[in-house]
Amino acid sequence: MGSDTLRRVFEAGSVAVIGASGDPTRIGGRPVAMLTAHGFAGPVYPINPNRDEIQGLPAYAAIGDVPGPVDLAICAVPGAMVEDVLGQCAAKGVGGVVVFAGGFAEVGGEGVEQQARLTAIARETGLRLIGPNCMGFANFGRHLTASFHPAFALQMPAGRIGLVSQSGAFGGLSSMMAVERGVGFSHALTTGNEADVDAADCLAFLAEDPATDVILLYLEGVRDGAAMLDALALARANRKPVVVVKLGRTEAGARAAQSHTSALAGTDRVFEAVFRQFGAYRANSIEEFYGIAAALAVGGLPKGNRAGLVTVSGGVGVLMADDAAARGLDVATLPEATQRKFKDIVPYAGVNNPLDVTGQILNQPELLDTALRLVLDEADYDAIVGFQGAALAATGADADRNLALWSDLKRDHPGKFLCVAGMAPPAVQERLEAAGLPLCVEPTHATRAAAAGAHFADAFARPPGWTRRPSTGGASTLPSGPLTEVQAMRILGAAGLPMTPHRLAVTADEAVAAAEALGLPVAMKIVSPDILHKTEIGGVRLNLASADAVRGAFAAITDAARNRAPRAAISGCLVAPMLTGGVETILGIHMDPVFGPLVMFGLGGVLVEVLEDVSFRVAPFDDGEAHRMIDEIKGRAVLDGVRGAPAADIDALAAALATLSRFAATQADRLLSVDLNPFVVLPRGEGAVALDAVLEVRT
Amino acid sequence: MGSDTLRRVFEAGSVAVIGASGDPTRIGGRPVAMLTAHGFAGPVYPINPNRDEIQGLPAYAAIGDVPGPVDLAICAVPGAMVEDVLGQCAAKGVGGVVVFAGGFAEVGGEGVEQQARLTAIARETGLRLIGPNCMGFANFGRHLTASFHPAFALQMPAGRIGLVSQSGAFGGLSSMMAVERGVGFSHALTTGNEADVDAADCLAFLAEDPATDVILLYLEGVRDGAAMLDALALARANRKPVVVVKLGRTEAGARAAQSHTSALAGTDRVFEAVFRQFGAYRANSIEEFYGIAAALAVGGLPKGNRAGLVTVSGGVGVLMADDAAARGLDVATLPEATQRKFKDIVPYAGVNNPLDVTGQILNQPELLDTALRLVLDEADYDAIVGFQGAALAATGADADRNLALWSDLKRDHPGKFLCVAGMAPPAVQERLEAAGLPLCVEPTHATRAAAAGAHFADAFARPPGWTRRPSTGGASTLPSGPLTEVQAMRILGAAGLPMTPHRLAVTADEAVAAAEALGLPVAMKIVSPDILHKTEIGGVRLNLASADAVRGAFAAITDAARNRAPRAAISGCLVAPMLTGGVETILGIHMDPVFGPLVMFGLGGVLVEVLEDVSFRVAPFDDGEAHRMIDEIKGRAVLDGVRGAPAADIDALAAALATLSRFAATQADRLLSVDLNPFVVLPRGEGAVALDAVLEVRT
Repeated sequence: MGSDTLRRVFEAGSVAVIGASGDPTRIGGRPVAMLTAHGFAGPVYPINPNRDEIQGLPAYAAIGDVPGPVDLAICAVPGAMVEDVLGQCAAKGVGGVVVFAGGFAEVGGEGVEQQARLTAIARETGLRLIGPNCMGFANFGRHLTASFHPAFALQMPAGRIGLVSQSGAFGGLSSMMAVERGVGFSHALTTGNEADVDAADCLAFLAEDPATDVILLYLEGVRDGAAMLDALALARANRKPVVVVKLGRTEAGARAAQSHTSALAGTDRVFEAVFRQFGAYRANSIEEFYGIAAALAVGGLPKGNRAGLVTVSGGVGVLMADDAAARGLDVATLPEATQRKFKDIVPYAGVNNPLDVTGQILNQPELLDTALRLVLDEADYDAIVGFQGAALAATGADADRNLALWSDLKRDHPGKFLCVAGMAPPAVQERLEAAGLPLCVEPTHATRAAAAGAHFADAFARPPGWTRRPSTGGASTLPSGPLTEVQAMRILGAAGLPMTPHRLAVTADEAVAAAEALGLPVAMKIVSPDILHKTEIGGVRLNLASADAVRGAFAAITDAARNRAPRAAISGCLVAPMLTGGVETILGIHMDPVFGPLVMFGLGGVLVEVLEDVSFRVAPFDDGEAHRMIDEIKGRAVLDGVRGAPAADIDALAAALATLSRFAATQADRLLSVDLNPFVVLPRGEGAVALDAVLEVRT
Repeated sequence: MGSDTLRRVFEAGSVAVIGASGDPTRIGGRPVAMLTAHGFAGPVYPINPNRDEIQGLPAYAAIGDVPGPVDLAICAVPGAMVEDVLGQCAAKGVGGVVVFAGGFAEVGGEGVEQQARLTAIARETGLRLIGPNCMGFANFGRHLTASFHPAFALQMPAGRIGLVSQSGAFGGLSSMMAVERGVGFSHALTTGNEADVDAADCLAFLAEDPATDVILLYLEGVRDGAAMLDALALARANRKPVVVVKLGRTEAGARAAQSHTSALAGTDRVFEAVFRQFGAYRANSIEEFYGIAAALAVGGLPKGNRAGLVTVSGGVGVLMADDAAARGLDVATLPEATQRKFKDIVPYAGVNNPLDVTGQILNQPELLDTALRLVLDEADYDAIVGFQGAALAATGADADRNLALWSDLKRDHPGKFLCVAGMAPPAVQERLEAAGLPLCVEPTHATRAAAAGAHFADAFARPPGWTRRPSTGGASTLPSGPLTEVQAMRILGAAGLPMTPHRLAVTADEAVAAAEALGLPVAMKIVSPDILHKTEIGGVRLNLASADAVRGAFAAITDAARNRAPRAAISGCLVAPMLTGGVETILGIHMDPVFGPLVMFGLGGVLVEVLEDVSFRVAPFDDGEAHRMIDEIKGRAVLDGVRGAPAADIDALAAALATLSRFAATQADRLLSVDLNPFVVLPRGEGAVALDAVLEVRT
């Protein structure tokens, strides 16, 4: 539904400019001038009560006076008049309004209330509102420029990159890069304060837009986490790469972001996890942001991560191999027979991968042809990067031969990602890119593009993992109030999580009986809904190997609790068998204000804490996604068994993570946190078990 | 000495071209053409037995026929003739020869021997040899182009960047970037196979060259590690930033490098440590390599790492803050009074840092002036980055005003690093850079340059740390043969390293007496020069708390040794007190084939092994450098005390590392390895102690 109403706006056939000016340099004049100059095909209605004609077009006193229907109104009036204008637009049946004016939520105070009134009008009338405090948007295919940003005045080449930006300036800069580089946009959508239409809406629109192949997403914060997850999932389902810049990676950045944007910033680690889980690629500079999108829009996606490198310089070849490998590409060696074939031609060539044709290329230009054909025909690489140095700068017959070679290769191998690196004049770049061959001056940008392509190929090839959080009808089944560990273990155990065998003992005799039933030695812990840190008050005893020891421990623990936490309600002692072996891990649920429940995973131990070596995923997800979050931690090899330890039961661990994620998703409306620490993963085939459970719920 | 002879070559006043050709497109013709076209002031002597005149110059049949002295001979003849030519050059008293021809060590087999003969001629006669298999060099200040690479035919703007490259193609590419970007080189020196002159020689030359401020170093491998350390130390002492690309970061890269270069590749981790210790900055792309050097050559060095950011776009401001902080810059907030001053002008501006002048700049262009002056005058930033979006693309009065603003600021604050970010036409860039203001299109490249500047400021501000390895006259004082742990502890203890108290017991009674003297409980270990892995054969017992336990352990350990290692010579059992508390670390010596002894440091435990969280330094070094290597590990916070543990005695740890480094440097010629594992760092004030010592020496 939302997408349909947005489509009417972003694909508008008729446009009114409210507050239109006859001066094409003014904010109210620029949209009229750009719509006219760029050749927008539909009617443009300038609205200005003081003029009959504006920039050669008949002007109207008010939006209600326009004779035909209006899909889009561009509102260039001061902030104080916006509310009134929106009302008039709604009455006229306008599809949507772009509001440039600032002074709303971004300035705080009354601005927040004024913006809330704009939102209310949009929600009540169905009018879509873009902004306020935004630079509007441009639909380059329709020559529809609903902006005053000078970047949009430039002639954009037709392109298949769609841009969503919460920052107008960032959107403008990216557009200027696109114009300069010559790989253009389908749409550039800026969202400003997002009183109605937000970045998730725009992302969802582009994910379904037939004119868009690759999506650029510039985010400062997310208002509606669920909608953003849906939009990211949609883009992925439609196999559209999403390249994202999200600000606030560092503390300094987060502080700056807070003072800049009114969007809820959220934790950067959570965003990082979301991007990873949904297959988005995170860029850290404007150049990388646009560069990746341009390369993939031109060259398409590879099918996998095997990269073949061909070079005319050994040094640059090694540089590319380093960069490719560091980015996760498989720089697999050429088949030996292929290596021999090239060695027969150039005995001192480097031939494993990269294939280095050497300076011999100066004497035998056809060597490049031979090398590329060998690499493409005889090895199963998904992506090929060819570094040509300054050879592309040649003109005349040499240039034509070179271009013909690359074009032929792309034609013969349409499913492979072919990327050219080297220095080339704009005309050569244009011809290469028209044939589906992105050109990068910097060789590592070519390997970076291949790696980004492989990243998307991998993301699109695997099942989604995540499913939309089920609506529980608002009713979590969790009991209220603080829960004891015994209650937590019962609830989580019932949800399918493996809990250590245990009994609650209310007397010392019961404790002894429990210990003997469970098998000595045992551990004992105080059970109280009011005591969270049991060890600190002396409420935990381990390795109790005899009935006497159990009896003594019961007395000691309950005494300690009475003395150190005199007001705590004591349920008794939990008795559980001691467990030896296995790898200690930590499983948890973090409730994120933006994205809801996230599952956390890490190894146990103080060093993991210091190194923050943990991974996160949005709930709920399946076992495959759980395996990926396990594989993501740096200490992953510990689970494979190091220093003679057996490999751990990673399947059992993954199953527990997925189960925990489903539990969290189902109970999200009442859940505060879950902490299974330690969660011991036993040797392969023996499963895993939580030795401790904390479950916090809303009271 | 070496530097003087090289200076004669690189600053040659007279040049002969051996194998000169009349065709300016041929390898033997290009140097003649370039020397003439670029305006080299000294005599150029073409040598060709078949011609009287070449490209308008009188030609000579042989180098011996040249009437005047010859500082430099460019040798463009085929490989087979090179040996003969070198002999003739030596006889003539030529300063040095550049040899282009390949087919020497890089092709293996006979080529290696042929190259060895060239080296011998150079060593015997004092003739300096550059190459073979190189692209020569260019001294742009003297218009001296001793190369055939087309990049050197381009008109290089005068510049203060010196380049050393082991790859001719890489050197050529960097030169083309310099020409395109307009920030030029003093020298471009390529070294090829390094039969005589190597990268370290060239680096040392540039470190002393008055025309060079910033050095670019492209390395594939290092032949003479000691010379490279000396050259890096010299560059640092002379406050010249060294930006380095070293290939082989990844396994794929190392494999490719091996097939490409005949230099000894060495371990990448060791190179990384050397660059860090000597203050070089490692770049990972050609763009970064040249970009950092260009920015620092234009803008000079900041004094420290405090960065102030000014922006016309909030989003780009946050992007820069993130990048700056991630690179270690201190994005300190503006003084509150300064923040208030700007808030008084633009109430909704972001003012902590970055200072975001907002879109209001469109209405009040003078806001940028105000913002920059506030940031420069009222806060003590070392570097300022100003993002101007597309404003620099303006022409006419606006452009002039903008340029004048920046020039004034730089003039008023000559000691600060000022960098402009945004899109600008070449003419604007040229004017900014002439005034000492580097311009970066990509905003994060500006923060990156400031961070690199801060990196060098820090490196140049601290004492060197490293000292050249003392010459021991070839006589290490270490005993020969395999050493027992007791011997290792005695030697290392005598060197000043803290060893746990211990006694060697040859009988069970001696063991009991030792345990009682040292204090129970004790640990016991088999002592044998032939048993390295004591635990594996049952040769270690811990926590022995009584005389009986000690007696039993002695029997068990010696029995185990006799059974499991029947041929090992057994010295007895080492008895040492059990130690509780402290942080377990590992100290070691790694003998690197290129750079000699390196000290390794890491925390104990399996996770450190999995994460490879260790640091290295070239020996010998002082306590300050030791502190830096301690601070470098990711798990550093463990030493500060986590989860209630006390802070460890880091000064004692640093002292031990420095002591170990001096020991290794003094004993380098006989030492194979040292391993102190665990080396326990006790709480602050209590010192540190090695519980185990392994010392391997050459037999």
